[in-house]
Amino acid sequence: MDFDILEYQKRLEKTKRSMEAKGIEVLLITDPANMNYLSGYDAWSFYVHQMLIVIIDEPQPIWIGRYMDAPGAKAKTWMYDENTMAYPDYYVQSMEYHPMEFIAEILEQIGQGNRSIGVEKEQYYFTAKAFDVLKEKLPNATFKDATSLVNWVRIIKSPQEIEYIRRAARIAEQAMTAGLNSIHTGSRECDAAASIFFELVRGTEEHGGDYPSIVPMLPTGENTSTPHLTWSDQYFKEDHSVIVELAGCYKRYHCPLARTAHIGQPSEKLERLAEIVAEGIDEVMSIVKPGVVLEELEEAWRKATRRYGIEKESRLGYSMGLNYPPDWGEHTASIRKGDHTILQPDMTFHFIPGIWLDHYGLEMSESFRVTNTGVEMFTNYPRELLIQSPFKMPDGSDGIIS
Amino acid sequence: MDFDILEYQKRLEKTKRSMEAKGIEVLLITDPANMNYLSGYDAWSFYVHQMLIVIIDEPQPIWIGRYMDAPGAKAKTWMYDENTMAYPDYYVQSMEYHPMEFIAEILEQIGQGNRSIGVEKEQYYFTAKAFDVLKEKLPNATFKDATSLVNWVRIIKSPQEIEYIRRAARIAEQAMTAGLNSIHTGSRECDAAASIFFELVRGTEEHGGDYPSIVPMLPTGENTSTPHLTWSDQYFKEDHSVIVELAGCYKRYHCPLARTAHIGQPSEKLERLAEIVAEGIDEVMSIVKPGVVLEELEEAWRKATRRYGIEKESRLGYSMGLNYPPDWGEHTASIRKGDHTILQPDMTFHFIPGIWLDHYGLEMSESFRVTNTGVEMFTNYPRELLIQSPFKMPDGSDGIIS
Repeated sequence: MDFDILEYQKRLEKTKRSMEAKGIEVLLITDPANMNYLSGYDAWSFYVHQMLIVIIDEPQPIWIGRYMDAPGAKAKTWMYDENTMAYPDYYVQSMEYHPMEFIAEILEQIGQGNRSIGVEKEQYYFTAKAFDVLKEKLPNATFKDATSLVNWVRIIKSPQEIEYIRRAARIAEQAMTAGLNSIHTGSRECDAAASIFFELVRGTEEHGGDYPSIVPMLPTGENTSTPHLTWSDQYFKEDHSVIVELAGCYKRYHCPLARTAHIGQPSEKLERLAEIVAEGIDEVMSIVKPGVVLEELEEAWRKATRRYGIEKESRLGYSMGLNYPPDWGEHTASIRKGDHTILQPDMTFHFIPGIWLDHYGLEMSESFRVTNTGVEMFTNYPRELLIQSPFKMPDGSDGIIS
Repeated sequence: MDFDILEYQKRLEKTKRSMEAKGIEVLLITDPANMNYLSGYDAWSFYVHQMLIVIIDEPQPIWIGRYMDAPGAKAKTWMYDENTMAYPDYYVQSMEYHPMEFIAEILEQIGQGNRSIGVEKEQYYFTAKAFDVLKEKLPNATFKDATSLVNWVRIIKSPQEIEYIRRAARIAEQAMTAGLNSIHTGSRECDAAASIFFELVRGTEEHGGDYPSIVPMLPTGENTSTPHLTWSDQYFKEDHSVIVELAGCYKRYHCPLARTAHIGQPSEKLERLAEIVAEGIDEVMSIVKPGVVLEELEEAWRKATRRYGIEKESRLGYSMGLNYPPDWGEHTASIRKGDHTILQPDMTFHFIPGIWLDHYGLEMSESFRVTNTGVEMFTNYPRELLIQSPFKMPDGSDGIIS
């Protein structure tokens, strides 16, 4: 198991306290990150319905999933084997049967069908249909929205979790360097993405990498004005910028990192923008400490960059850590106006003040932890526009000329 | 664009015919594969709410998504730019606002709020909450379940789509070989996964790879008895089996491929199992042609393997092609008992009769197309148990000894 059994039990205790406060007796967890957090279960099986059930007056959660995934659940979770239940394969992606029918029946059988049941209504893997089936099959239950209940429990990290993010940070740095080394006119976007993926998954010699919950993004040229297009098989061109956004991942814990590279001599405009963003990051990081409210970070950013005419509509970052595709963000606190979350020690964030203008853009980001007195930066990577030689260096090793 | 505009319009026409047959006037498409299929939109932005709206009496669909993703939509879709609409960033992962409020308002404004509206109720990225918000904000609409409506339109592939799957097949073969070459006792599971990822993403010299919708799986040792655990950073061990399941991907079109390798001398039992599975695959492939019913393939498999005492509870395969994480299957036809889909030319399937026993397992799979008279296998890879030398070859090139 990836954590001591006591850590899982502590997480469960905290979850139950939050359930109690919200009047929830039975919590149906379908977010794979939350399932992992409370049980240890880790598999690429979230493309079929699965669930972890936390009952307020039962000592162990129950895992329910597809028949062929049950041995994995027995192997990876801390609970007794009899707390693993499985539905037959004819429920899978069927037009006739729905796994929630099976799950509702189990809930009735174990006497939970008439209780106050929390569901994660705003969660990728809990479909509209799944909720409809549960409501129909459990007419005596009272349903409550428990979206992000466990996510908020997750927001303060344990020493072991922080250690995992630090390992992910080493992987992120090494993948960023591999990516930059592949960005020159003799190489295609997919070649650079391949080099990044290789390093992300191989990891370091001590700690193998896990798959990141978002693939490396590398918008190039005019596409730097939009952040989420993935790579193509076009060759890199001189005078193009490339934004590299990636995350190292260790045992599902992420450390995101973004930088912008320019192939050849960048415009003064772009260099200046990079300086402004770096200065803004410095300003914001200098005020991070327990007690600060998240929107104060946004305010500090605004103050630092407004004088240069920079305005940013989108949020500046988010709480991050454990997650599964399609997102490494934790879906709790965001660094933006109106977010009144108070910083506490061992919260972890990705600060990503991406600037997307009409025909170009720039991203530079930092992942950080709130310490008892200030901030710990997870990665140590030059906080500047990275200027690439258009051509591969003669020794093949490095295209970075600045 | 990845396809000719006429192909997109043909797809739209077929979709509208299906809407008409089901009494749906407005179709809200949230499945990223379906959005791509009808509009060309391709980005890793499906972790926030987005939608393609098809109105039965309007010539072009409408794309609605997050503000920062709108330039990408304008760049990648065939529709007029004014058919791209965007919601402000404060809707993103907020506890107060929901993007479906914005979308409902648009639907009202353009006079669609009181029509018969189809939604993809059983789809990863259409949450229970999203449906609740739509129902609340559009009280005069009649909602219908349109799950898999577009998926069924997708089931017959065009010549261009088939060509993309063939390109993905070349990538799958090369990634499989790279993976097998990394499976020996001097290497970790993550090292093999890294080599596979590198080849998948780099692709061939002519055609760069895209990210597969499922990461490479390589359950090892006892874990071969469960299919969906991902890699660890443990070293491979002599006498262990390793199942490698991966898919090459080109412009979001997949070609899955699975093989089982054994490090060192396999047991007779395992070798025999591989022979039985290979024989079963042969039998099933020999009857594939238009007019055959899917469950007849399952029956042929059962007949071929029952005499050896093999029984398989789970489905044997599924329609595949275009998709996004977390699944490369198309969620339409399955190769199993009770599926009465009739094979037609240019349907494409992944046939994967995985055998998971108590302490070991075996996977060997083939992706195929139904031709006018029979079957086209997409990949050409030895259909046998692949025996690996426990040690890296002196020239470092190849661990395959059989």
